[in-house]
Amino acid sequence: MRKTIDLSLYLVTDRPLSLGRPIEWIVEEAVKGGTTIVQLREKDCSTREFIELAIKLKQTLAPYNVALIINDRVDVALAANADGVHLGQSDMDCKTARQLLGPDKIIGLSIEHIDETDAANQLDIDYVAVSPVYLTGTKTDTSAALGIDGVKSIVAKSIHPVVGIGGMNKNTIADVIAAGADGVAVVSAIVSAENPNESSAELIDIVKQSKQ
Amino acid sequence: MRKTIDLSLYLVTDRPLSLGRPIEWIVEEAVKGGTTIVQLREKDCSTREFIELAIKLKQTLAPYNVALIINDRVDVALAANADGVHLGQSDMDCKTARQLLGPDKIIGLSIEHIDETDAANQLDIDYVAVSPVYLTGTKTDTSAALGIDGVKSIVAKSIHPVVGIGGMNKNTIADVIAAGADGVAVVSAIVSAENPNESSAELIDIVKQSKQ
Repeated sequence: MRKTIDLSLYLVTDRPLSLGRPIEWIVEEAVKGGTTIVQLREKDCSTREFIELAIKLKQTLAPYNVALIINDRVDVALAANADGVHLGQSDMDCKTARQLLGPDKIIGLSIEHIDETDAANQLDIDYVAVSPVYLTGTKTDTSAALGIDGVKSIVAKSIHPVVGIGGMNKNTIADVIAAGADGVAVVSAIVSAENPNESSAELIDIVKQSKQ
Repeated sequence: MRKTIDLSLYLVTDRPLSLGRPIEWIVEEAVKGGTTIVQLREKDCSTREFIELAIKLKQTLAPYNVALIINDRVDVALAANADGVHLGQSDMDCKTARQLLGPDKIIGLSIEHIDETDAANQLDIDYVAVSPVYLTGTKTDTSAALGIDGVKSIVAKSIHPVVGIGGMNKNTIADVIAAGADGVAVVSAIVSAENPNESSAELIDIVKQSKQ
């Protein structure tokens, strides 16, 4: 069975932005503070290191019943028995990923243009990410910002839950939730925070208030 | 069933060394010239591009009945239904890779130190690569060169077929075959050759003569 996910506060890891602190520590502090789902994103490590880190994070998250999603790498997700993958438009196509992962894993897909929503509606996936809502220094390979209007358009068209990613912080997330998103995906607002636990608590409070 | 492989002349692709020529063209010319097995190695492209290239190469190689091996990426091998993977000591461990790939795929493993041969003998793999025989500019993340003595020691200990990689060209391969290797893995000697077909023909002739 696919793990039930709560997209409200979706942490995406980033080692270079973690100020030298271990990812496991940041993730556990974030989850204690209210982060509801975690994506492990690694771009510059070996496959073996990526798998070992994924296995470690899975153990970290187990007591909290929080899903672990792997960015891009279906092989790492399978080897670590993670809860799912997050795929971009230049990663493995979702249909092949579903065949390889089977029916029990979560698949999320980044949508970079509003017109990709129709294709996403045809897929056996679990959520879509509006990417990016705002431009940011964290990812340099992204398309033009979709903005709050983009979030609204995709929410209106999508049969899947929607998260916003890109420039998400305590000043921007209320608008994204108010636009109809189920959650927000944050990177530096948690991984670079002096206290990832407190940051998560502050962010999840804003999400919850904006949903009311 | 696992594809029968002939390790005699093992081409490892390298896009930056291909002088701007398409990998499909180099691979087909090489195979026409006598290359017996092909490994697709890509370090800097997206997962989707890697898979698309693997699918293209599989189609290129089908009429020649030459196996296509994917470097490192079990996900790409599965998505493209390639014939197998080649794993380094910092890639996915071979036991997990065998579980994910099933019994019908080829798995090759790089051995960087002679004492890794015993562990390799315990694994359900199809060949080992002595890596590197000589130091080279092609790979910068390799261990110390194992040399001809290293090839001899690994050939003596290994229950699996052995290929030599690193610094393999028309001047060096005869010694490696004479030391007992089943084949040699070449990169720039073919991918940077003005005529990959003729280069392959020259190299496979040397391998065959050295095996007599």
